Amino acid sequence: MMEKRDKGIGGGAAANSPLPLMGQNEEGNAAAVRTAEPIARLVPMALCVSALVIMLKNSQTNDFGSLSYSDLGAFRYLVHANGICAGYSLLSAIIAAMSRPCTMPQAWTFFFLDQVLTYLILAAGSVSMEVLYLARNGDVAITWSAACGSFGGFCYKATASVIITFVAVACYAVLSLLSSYKLFSKFDAPIAYPGKNIEVAAFQA
Amino acid sequence: MMEKRDKGIGGGAAANSPLPLMGQNEEGNAAAVRTAEPIARLVPMALCVSALVIMLKNSQTNDFGSLSYSDLGAFRYLVHANGICAGYSLLSAIIAAMSRPCTMPQAWTFFFLDQVLTYLILAAGSVSMEVLYLARNGDVAITWSAACGSFGGFCYKATASVIITFVAVACYAVLSLLSSYKLFSKFDAPIAYPGKNIEVAAFQA
Repeated sequence: MMEKRDKGIGGGAAANSPLPLMGQNEEGNAAAVRTAEPIARLVPMALCVSALVIMLKNSQTNDFGSLSYSDLGAFRYLVHANGICAGYSLLSAIIAAMSRPCTMPQAWTFFFLDQVLTYLILAAGSVSMEVLYLARNGDVAITWSAACGSFGGFCYKATASVIITFVAVACYAVLSLLSSYKLFSKFDAPIAYPGKNIEVAAFQA
Repeated sequence: MMEKRDKGIGGGAAANSPLPLMGQNEEGNAAAVRTAEPIARLVPMALCVSALVIMLKNSQTNDFGSLSYSDLGAFRYLVHANGICAGYSLLSAIIAAMSRPCTMPQAWTFFFLDQVLTYLILAAGSVSMEVLYLARNGDVAITWSAACGSFGGFCYKATASVIITFVAVACYAVLSLLSSYKLFSKFDAPIAYPGKNIEVAAFQA
């Protein structure tokens, strides 16, 4: 089985077979793969950058005092997580666009990092939402006041940033699903199926 | 491709081929699958129940007042998430133990629910950790006091529950990885490979 791992996957057939042997449809599919995957990876990048910028610019000063995103650990983590995810998305989009066919170690790396970053940004979104919940409602039992009463504008922008982050989480969940399909559907395959382009065709639907 | 979906996967070869044709090794593998997967699914159940019980019994009364897990939304969510995950783990272990070979709709259901519950319990662990962080350190900017100074015993038990929850998260991450391997490695396969038992052999290593 070991010697099969070095075979190209996800577009491998298009690269391995000489052009005159490729059908018109297969050629079209391979081209669609090359275009669709990098674009799909750029969507969460745009979302992460938006969430990051909104949160970075989020600070409010009024009679009660001054509040900035950096005063709260959860929001600092959100900014860092969004930054890391945006960087990874850009990098992976470039790699996905440039290196065809996709090799086995590359599929493994994409699969592993997609999973890790999904968990990373989900955790960031969750802790930020919890802080927002506490800031809105406060907690009587441990005498935490509802800070959003005094800092409404701050809470409004933070909410926007958290919502965008959760949309990015959904994108990452789909991406990690696709990368696991791409990896495992080829894991034991002795030959490259024409059907392997299914995962990218889903983007066009 | 549609007609392939109804074929049994993950132990399908053992069920489809008559017994006299099965090698000794293949028979052993099929038996190992039947035993290993339900056990692997019971591990996070034990963890979730422990985390749930520790958190449910977590309340402290002293001169400063009384604090219970139900005073904090994040801990209530943690208890619910752990309860749901424990129930799902028990149910999926029973189903995995009873129904062989695993059908395609069942593999899809396991895959989908494993993913959803991983995200659910990761979010629960994250928000609880954030509340614990705030309770330990407080936050000067929005005048939240460090409640752990007054309720040390409460924080100690809550920390134990959150740590156990994160171990359960790791188990779920591995389970969802295995169920995606199991699903996608068979998705396009025209025949059942003997190599399909790899995912369960990993448990024995």
